[in-house]
Amino acid sequence: MAKLLIKNAEIISAKDTGKYYIGIEDNLIKTISKELPQGFEGAEVIDSDGKIAVPGMVNTHTHAAMTLLRSYADDMVLMDWLQNKIWPAEDGLTDEDIYWGTMLSIVEMLKSGTTCFADMYFSMDRVADAVAETGIRAALSRGLTGFSDENFAKLEENAALFKERHNSCNGRIRVMLGPHAPYTCSMDYLKKVVAKAQELGSEIHMHLAETRGEVDDCFKEHGMSPIKLMDSIGMFECGTLAAHCVHVDEEDMELMAAKHVRVAHNPQSNLKLASGIAPVPAMLAHGITVGLGTDGTSSNNNLDMLEECRLAAMLHKNMTGDPQILPAAEALALATSEGAKALGFKNLGKIEAGQIADIVLYDMDKPYWHPRHDRTSLFVYAANAGDADTVIIDGKVLLQNGKLLNMDLEKIYAEADVRARRLTNK
Amino acid sequence: MAKLLIKNAEIISAKDTGKYYIGIEDNLIKTISKELPQGFEGAEVIDSDGKIAVPGMVNTHTHAAMTLLRSYADDMVLMDWLQNKIWPAEDGLTDEDIYWGTMLSIVEMLKSGTTCFADMYFSMDRVADAVAETGIRAALSRGLTGFSDENFAKLEENAALFKERHNSCNGRIRVMLGPHAPYTCSMDYLKKVVAKAQELGSEIHMHLAETRGEVDDCFKEHGMSPIKLMDSIGMFECGTLAAHCVHVDEEDMELMAAKHVRVAHNPQSNLKLASGIAPVPAMLAHGITVGLGTDGTSSNNNLDMLEECRLAAMLHKNMTGDPQILPAAEALALATSEGAKALGFKNLGKIEAGQIADIVLYDMDKPYWHPRHDRTSLFVYAANAGDADTVIIDGKVLLQNGKLLNMDLEKIYAEADVRARRLTNK
Repeated sequence: MAKLLIKNAEIISAKDTGKYYIGIEDNLIKTISKELPQGFEGAEVIDSDGKIAVPGMVNTHTHAAMTLLRSYADDMVLMDWLQNKIWPAEDGLTDEDIYWGTMLSIVEMLKSGTTCFADMYFSMDRVADAVAETGIRAALSRGLTGFSDENFAKLEENAALFKERHNSCNGRIRVMLGPHAPYTCSMDYLKKVVAKAQELGSEIHMHLAETRGEVDDCFKEHGMSPIKLMDSIGMFECGTLAAHCVHVDEEDMELMAAKHVRVAHNPQSNLKLASGIAPVPAMLAHGITVGLGTDGTSSNNNLDMLEECRLAAMLHKNMTGDPQILPAAEALALATSEGAKALGFKNLGKIEAGQIADIVLYDMDKPYWHPRHDRTSLFVYAANAGDADTVIIDGKVLLQNGKLLNMDLEKIYAEADVRARRLTNK
Repeated sequence: MAKLLIKNAEIISAKDTGKYYIGIEDNLIKTISKELPQGFEGAEVIDSDGKIAVPGMVNTHTHAAMTLLRSYADDMVLMDWLQNKIWPAEDGLTDEDIYWGTMLSIVEMLKSGTTCFADMYFSMDRVADAVAETGIRAALSRGLTGFSDENFAKLEENAALFKERHNSCNGRIRVMLGPHAPYTCSMDYLKKVVAKAQELGSEIHMHLAETRGEVDDCFKEHGMSPIKLMDSIGMFECGTLAAHCVHVDEEDMELMAAKHVRVAHNPQSNLKLASGIAPVPAMLAHGITVGLGTDGTSSNNNLDMLEECRLAAMLHKNMTGDPQILPAAEALALATSEGAKALGFKNLGKIEAGQIADIVLYDMDKPYWHPRHDRTSLFVYAANAGDADTVIIDGKVLLQNGKLLNMDLEKIYAEADVRARRLTNK
């Protein structure tokens, strides 16, 4: 059994600011103690002196390969942006483009303390390859859109992905079905997706109620909200991760709570695209599981989850007029353990014995880590994700001293840059 | 004359992505060129290869020494926070506490690319010492509160600061008078402040219209808004930097534009304290000068100006429902040249010949700087302030390779930590 021992670790959720040993066996946290634990004599040792251990961040909604379009088109109206910039560029994407765009996004995630992400895009076989090779954790779904039979092949692709990759890599990869949104799929298609999910036992990842216009159109066409519409075809019985949920009302939230719909809240993307602000405190009051996400980097434009965590904590205080809403520890839980739950990973997102060992050590030798009245508050409101020094996923060290151990950054940057130029010069 | 030559510099505002020489003579940018400029043969050379030159950020509103209370009290209701945590702790502050708290904040600002700040606090002589010693640029004001004669001594202190320090250090230090707010000063006191400002020829830095409650109370007591009230005693004729201005109406904005009131917009602090969102796009449409600020680190909790710039750009898109509002270049201008204007510094905030040489070089060898479709968009929406590699202020290099050249960080952290513990253990 592979053994890894972290020593001198301050732990963000610990009751005191003392230093702990964290003993890891294979991919699990076995023990946390003040004394050197038994059975770890020959283990690989990581010294966390001056660093704080925080659960790895879980990005519950992104389109990783869209890093290739980062900074290509900003400050635009949604449909102009999509029709004249994003969709034409995406049209030229090859499998290999998506692989390298995903690799770039994995570099960025690992270096900023994100250890797990939910992705919805295409060429997902190559995305799964990137996840498998690099050691990061992910819930993958093939984006499904379509109004005619020819698009049903994508569903078969997603089903094949599920059969071949779900729970692969020691459980690091989960696969979900990825119907894009109610307005980009026919009802017939969506019913086929639900039937396929039931057949496979897979869960669903979908955009829901992102914009006011989408919800208004849904009422006009179907006489009900997107949430109710998806419930009417039995989607939520499959287990659903719903991205955005900006425009949901009281009845929607009651339904979401009853059917255990989990939400991916993307505060930066929603602000930048002027979509609105999801009623997260009300969702939490309903007992709905809410995780945080960045959305794709062409509408954000980075994959920094600490930014999302900080913004969520601040934004909802102002929205509710109550500065006590979403205190630091709760915001951090959304970015970690609640996010893991939203993606269907079990025993993930806390630094506790029995949990999967996805741990990040952040360097505290920085001005904004002084003075140290409250470490959780410092992390959520003051710290910088760029200070991730060590990243451990599934018990394996992927980043040490701020350096990725097994990735060729120069090649990844070069591949991404060349491909991005080709895509946008058409 | 001291000469400094930056070579291989990409410049964020340049028309092309080529590499430039930036020639600095004493404290001014003398020349920007593709060819080696004449007269810089023996100059000190800084190689900007792989780094991008951005004007130094200007933080238009903070209380620097409040770093000592960072993370001491968060997620609380304003009056509970002030009365039970902040004010009792501040009661114990000595001149030396404020010096060391300010030093900690200067470390944080320099390391994140902020080259200038507007401060309002007390023991401002020691704050001025910290500014003078470290080489940063600042507009300083002594916070003035009071309803009785005994408080008028503070005004004399502020006046003495103006006489001794205004325009000192080669113009790096400006001094303003700092009446705290309409609700913490008697009208009699505020009239004395205005008279003193007129006598000295000094400008004024004040909190105005931060909360709904403040504005409602002002209408009840005085029958007019805080903006109109301050205008009624002639304050704006002195030149006024107004922090927050969250709750201003159309008439207020017309008055502010007519009287050249400059605004310090603090988006994170306003969200975190649930104060509201200032109507910045409307202010800009009125032609009002708006800069950005962090406010103190006990309500933020860091001094990262890039976060404020990014949040401002995103937040106002959503508030107006228009994703084209505050595009990246305009948001960056608020954080730099407009901020400089708000503080009364001339020829500051752009990388152009004739401007004061306050320049930051950011390392672009980071995943979020790839691909590079648009550098301004990358900086505003994706970059990390922690990547500041080189900081030049008034033509002098203060930070190089990410290291502060003339500050003892270990001592500053230790002094701040010890003093913070003493203050909060009462």
